Amino acid sequence: MHSPASFTNIPFMREISSADNRIVKQAASLTEKKYRDALGMYLIEGPNYIRDAISSGGRLRFIFMKAGTVSGEAEETAALAERNGPAVIILPGSVFQKICSTETSQGIVAVADKRVWTEDAFFADRDGDVLVLDRIQDPGNLGTMLRTAEAMGFCGAMLIKGCCDVFSPKTVRAAAGSVMRLPLLFTHGAEEAMKLLAKHGKTPYAGVMSGGTPCFKAELAENAAIVIGNEGAGVSPAFLNACRGLTIPMAGEIESLNAAAAAGILMYEAYRQRALSAAIDRRKK
Amino acid sequence: MHSPASFTNIPFMREISSADNRIVKQAASLTEKKYRDALGMYLIEGPNYIRDAISSGGRLRFIFMKAGTVSGEAEETAALAERNGPAVIILPGSVFQKICSTETSQGIVAVADKRVWTEDAFFADRDGDVLVLDRIQDPGNLGTMLRTAEAMGFCGAMLIKGCCDVFSPKTVRAAAGSVMRLPLLFTHGAEEAMKLLAKHGKTPYAGVMSGGTPCFKAELAENAAIVIGNEGAGVSPAFLNACRGLTIPMAGEIESLNAAAAAGILMYEAYRQRALSAAIDRRKK
Repeated sequence: MHSPASFTNIPFMREISSADNRIVKQAASLTEKKYRDALGMYLIEGPNYIRDAISSGGRLRFIFMKAGTVSGEAEETAALAERNGPAVIILPGSVFQKICSTETSQGIVAVADKRVWTEDAFFADRDGDVLVLDRIQDPGNLGTMLRTAEAMGFCGAMLIKGCCDVFSPKTVRAAAGSVMRLPLLFTHGAEEAMKLLAKHGKTPYAGVMSGGTPCFKAELAENAAIVIGNEGAGVSPAFLNACRGLTIPMAGEIESLNAAAAAGILMYEAYRQRALSAAIDRRKK
Repeated sequence: MHSPASFTNIPFMREISSADNRIVKQAASLTEKKYRDALGMYLIEGPNYIRDAISSGGRLRFIFMKAGTVSGEAEETAALAERNGPAVIILPGSVFQKICSTETSQGIVAVADKRVWTEDAFFADRDGDVLVLDRIQDPGNLGTMLRTAEAMGFCGAMLIKGCCDVFSPKTVRAAAGSVMRLPLLFTHGAEEAMKLLAKHGKTPYAGVMSGGTPCFKAELAENAAIVIGNEGAGVSPAFLNACRGLTIPMAGEIESLNAAAAAGILMYEAYRQRALSAAIDRRKK
């Protein structure tokens, strides 16, 4: 078993007991979007995602641990993080709760710098599909879509103004590490997004409830961009007018799929066609 | 605009103002699983899902409306429901909150009988795929999976003991009407489920994180059963030993997909292959 005393193997560890401490107040403010925006930082809860952030080169500012945490995993993560820079700070439970309210934190939360991708960095991998997210409102859906995009080999996700915050604790959790790894590009609107996609040779498709090409009949372009729209209203007109429509054929009386499930299916279809065409290329050689 | 006074076009409407009323207390108890189990009833929140329940032949016991509700949609739903049997009861806001806590209810909640499917009724459609859910823990995931199953033309979902409650308000919401329409069969364990699947000619597959056939290379049988396992632990050994494994190939450093996203992709793959083989059959004729 690990006791709080064993934290002493982390040399630069310190304790803060006051919720009024400047560092603690700043960290607590990151539970709100406006402070995440202003400070360019966000919170990562739990040892797994903190290790993901470290291994993907993310910059951590502070590690907070709840006093009395008896998780070897949390302690090892703190030690690992500490060797990479940030100070480890022990907080009493009541103060720790101001930064973190989930049970999945396992007593450890990091403050990380938001990672910024320039246009060039985002499109550096010229050969790849891009996910475009248009006013996604549910933090869980947004995180799940980023997680699936990474798994389906997408080279990044473009976020159109009006999406909920990628760096909210709920989205970070649902993304299961992908927020730290998947290249993200923030754009002001559909027009800017379409220009960028055209400039970088991506063929744009929009997921639509009806009237599009059935997705398994569509021969998707090699470098596709797949636009997923708002949970209620769907893809905005500016995208609709400029994209080929893709529809997931559906049986039954159901009107629509959950947005993250639909995004997953369309990304899988792109991935499947890419794998198939790679296999055909190999056979030709 | 609609005023509460216009509710008078619903003839058998009555008002109850006390939270101690027997009918109100019974309805409020349905927010807890043990009472849903004991009474065989559950709550449906919001006009859309209540209409879904009516149109799919579900039996409603009561409709509760929040006094002062000014939604024409809610009122029309109440009138429609009332013609089909249940009494419409107006509750003051404070009492209504005991039955319903979401904003999506739009001031209307129904008490419905759980629909029971016998083995014969469940397997009546001999030609179709079945979703098998093994200890799914997240109500949102469970509901999303049922919604996707209906959309992908699955003929039903088999729920293995250990899944969270299909009739919880959160699952009913996430399922977007599918809980009322999709045939559901409850089984005690993997062994019973496997026997039923064999008896009814279903070929069982289990979604596994690694080591299974890549799902787009697997030629799925015409009547497939796809087992989706617990979010953390995956499919239980009893299923693993008896099923062919199916793996969703993944790129990136991601370890796994969200369970509902993974289930969606596997069900889509089954649907795609079924559509493809139907198209080939048509061409042969």
